[in-house]
Formats: sequence, C-alpha cells, structure tokens
Amino acid sequence: MSNVYPASDATRIKRHPERGSYDRDVVHAILDEALICHLACSTGQHVIAMPTAFARAGETIYVHGAIANRSLDGLLGGAPFSITVTLLDGLVLARSAFHHSMNYRSVVLTGKARLVEGRDEKGEAMTLLVDRMARGRSRETRAPYDWELDATKVIAVEIEHASAKIRSGGPIDDADDMKEPCWAGVVPLRLVASDPEPEADSTTRPTPDVPAQLR
Amino acid sequence: MSNVYPASDATRIKRHPERGSYDRDVVHAILDEALICHLACSTGQHVIAMPTAFARAGETIYVHGAIANRSLDGLLGGAPFSITVTLLDGLVLARSAFHHSMNYRSVVLTGKARLVEGRDEKGEAMTLLVDRMARGRSRETRAPYDWELDATKVIAVEIEHASAKIRSGGPIDDADDMKEPCWAGVVPLRLVASDPEPEADSTTRPTPDVPAQLR
Repeated sequence: MSNVYPASDATRIKRHPERGSYDRDVVHAILDEALICHLACSTGQHVIAMPTAFARAGETIYVHGAIANRSLDGLLGGAPFSITVTLLDGLVLARSAFHHSMNYRSVVLTGKARLVEGRDEKGEAMTLLVDRMARGRSRETRAPYDWELDATKVIAVEIEHASAKIRSGGPIDDADDMKEPCWAGVVPLRLVASDPEPEADSTTRPTPDVPAQLR
Repeated sequence: MSNVYPASDATRIKRHPERGSYDRDVVHAILDEALICHLACSTGQHVIAMPTAFARAGETIYVHGAIANRSLDGLLGGAPFSITVTLLDGLVLARSAFHHSMNYRSVVLTGKARLVEGRDEKGEAMTLLVDRMARGRSRETRAPYDWELDATKVIAVEIEHASAKIRSGGPIDDADDMKEPCWAGVVPLRLVASDPEPEADSTTRPTPDVPAQLR
C-alpha cells in the first residue's frame, strides 16, 4: 500500500497547497488525536455537518448512532458524504488585520460506507470508541449486551481519499508592516481535561486515564 | 421578532429533542463562544465541511476567504449549505459501554448568503473577526488597506433557521448497572489559551486580551 492517499476533487488542497499533506501517517496522527469529527452529508434538500464521536482502526473509521439514525442511512444509500476532523492549535495575531490567522491541523476524508452487521465487529467498534475516550475503559465497563449492540447502528468507512492541512508557526506580515508598533505572535490553544468528577454514587474503582494529549 | 427560530427540516432536533433549543439567546451564546465553525456545502459531486473562522453581529454571520474561494461562490449561487458550531465540554463515562457519551453544545443554522460588496461592511466584518480572536485587537493593528479589502471575499449569512443541542451532566446508567464496580462520572474538557508567544521581533506594545472563555 502506498504511504500517500491518492488525491481527489474532494480532498485536493487548493488554497495554500504547501500546507497540505496526503501522507497516511500525518492523516492518522490527526485522526487519532481528535475526539470528534464532523460528518457532512446531504439529507436530500439540505447539507449538514453533524459532530459525532469516531474511532480509527487501520484505514477504517467507525461512527455510530441510534438504529433509527436517518443520516447514517443516507451514507449507506450512497449519498455523498465526507468526514472532517479539526484540531485548533492557536490564534495567530499579525501586525495587520489582513494577516491574522489560526494554527490548526485538519483532515478531510471520503470513502465507502458499509453497515457493520456482525456483533463481533460491532463489539470491536464499541471497544475502540470507548477506549478513545479513556484508555483501558473497555476493560472497566461491563461488556455490551446483545440487545445494546442490536440497538446501535455502526457504520464503517473505508478511507479512499484523505488529505491533511496544517498551519503552524507565527504570523507572516508584509515587510512594510514590521515597523508597526503592535504586538504580534501566537496564542497557543489546547483542549485540556480537568479533574474527573465522579458521580455521587460512583464506586472507588480507579478512574481510567484520559487520552494523553488532554493532560 | 420572536425570541425563537422557526424550525425547519435542516435544524429540527429529531434525536433527543429534550436536548434541543430554538431560543435565539441560547443559540447566540454558543456562537459567541466558538472560534471556528464548520461550513458544510456541496461542491457539485461532493459534500464537504470546512473549518473556518466566523463572527456574529445580530442575526448576521460573517465568514471570509480569498477572493478565489470557490466554495463561497457555491453559497452565493444558491447551493444548499449550513453552518455547524460545536463546543466539546466533557467525556461522559458510564458504567456500561452503551451509555458512554459526551457533553457538548452545538448549533446548526441555515440562512441566506449574500456577498458583502461595500468596503464599509467588509471593514466592519474584518473588525468583528479580528476582535473575536482577541479583545480590542482591531484598535491595535493598522486598518486594512483598500487592496486588502478588495482581495478578501466576505459572505454574510442572515440566519433563518437555527437550533442548539446541548448535553450536560453525568452519565445516565440503567438501574441494573448502578451496582457495577466501575468508576463513573465526567471528565470536563475545555479549550484553553496558554501564554502568548511573541514573535522575536515583536514590539512591547501590550498583548491584547484573548477571549474571556479561553482563560
């Protein structure tokens, strides 16, 4: 397998192509740090992006929802869709309003969607989704009952096309603006977890570790 | 003006309607806390959600891009689109894998898009966009040149339909699972700003305040 994704109309980076990457490792790293994606799909008359949890295994992305979820049905019916993942890394304050920007890492991917029907793969997907929220969590919670798996719709998306877009570093001002008497630089942003808040009736079994990038 | 948005097929909350709100104040508060939105639109064959900066003034949302930005042209051409804003507030760890969830506040909105043509409104939109990144920033940076405004495409979206969806609080386990020997609760998540990093050649003019919700 090539280590780069083939470009497509949906994933080709047109603006600032120097910020783009089709490298699988780059794409995977962004996917594995994010807790949610935005699933963009058409509902017939409308185009909507829905925030949703997801997990990756190799070149497969798992998303899930209630069995009655009609947007997921659209994917299975062949309606166009894509998945966007965005990590916001900083505010870039330039000397001119014009060159203000943000640092970010994002991925857009498309692929073939299929319904996960077997309880084994559904169970594996649930394990991945739960372990993305907290490491080792799937070993602490009781295993899903069959009726719970049956009530859950799991969609697997086999990635066909994907690209990453990354902006990092400081502002890029015009030479003429370097003399402006104005602070310029970056305000770093990070999604952080604060101390876990137990339910009042929670047992004392150890709190699972939250993902490393949140601490 | 009614204080609630009329529902539409695009914005009606179908799953967990008790988590939905069409209240303008609730929608505005979520919009005003977020630094980016995902603009979902159709590019003909594809449906893509793009992360982008935005700012709100009353019932108007401003987004901007390079003058050659073709996705923004699609909006102006009448292609269906929507804007999603998502704030991730926490990981909800239940006693069962099945009831794991996330706390979040999200908004989906649709409306009419128009090209902002006058330099006055373009300038005001740029001021709003810059001040969203840091308070008072537009007074510290030099004003945009006319050629910079001319090189920037600004789109105004007049909100027609909008809904918020909010999940908060702890896990909701089944009664039978309350005896499970498993920690349960919430891991709060927050996007935080760390200390501003000045460019090496930056002047000592005071660093602008970043938005209050990031500190």
